[in-house]
Amino acid sequence: MLAKTPKPPYFAVIFTSTRTPGDHGYEAMAARMIELAAQQPGFLGIESARGQDGLGITVSYWRSEADIAAWKANAEHLVAQSKGKEEWYAAFATRVAKVERDNAVVRGS
Amino acid sequence: MLAKTPKPPYFAVIFTSTRTPGDHGYEAMAARMIELAAQQPGFLGIESARGQDGLGITVSYWRSEADIAAWKANAEHLVAQSKGKEEWYAAFATRVAKVERDNAVVRGS
Repeated sequence: MLAKTPKPPYFAVIFTSTRTPGDHGYEAMAARMIELAAQQPGFLGIESARGQDGLGITVSYWRSEADIAAWKANAEHLVAQSKGKEEWYAAFATRVAKVERDNAVVRGS
Repeated sequence: MLAKTPKPPYFAVIFTSTRTPGDHGYEAMAARMIELAAQQPGFLGIESARGQDGLGITVSYWRSEADIAAWKANAEHLVAQSKGKEEWYAAFATRVAKVERDNAVVRGS
């Protein structure tokens, strides 16, 4: 479940959100966006969690800022972004960050 | 619930994890670490979620890399890190990233 990313530097898009009540097609679209993101050039991995209090965090990892820009402009993704802003999200924030160093530990490895 | 961060640049620590079975004091320590982090110099905010599949993501935001280094070296935090590595986490990854741009939208604002 943890993303296996290459050696830094690479880029992260940190997307945090709270939902409006009800599904309204959200879960299906969220799953589709993860599937679609994984097909894009420069995609390195994704991690996503939504807690019981409703706060959701999705971090996607990318090779370059150009790859992030291309994914943002993807036609199907643009439709999802529009629906998110108009209907699904009570609040959201997007942060683009350059990962400078990382450290991963898997028990028993 | 979304962190209110200042204008970039600032820094993010992206901590992703999966838990071992059982609580073993984890929830209390996690809550204490959020409380303690918020008291540190340079702390800008924190967002945390753990999904039903067990993947947890906590992103804390900081003014500088020096502030992150000081938090990492905090005595009480060191104890928690050690317990995390030895007992609470099946796997975890820490990424330190420089936030270059962000965008936040709150419905109705």
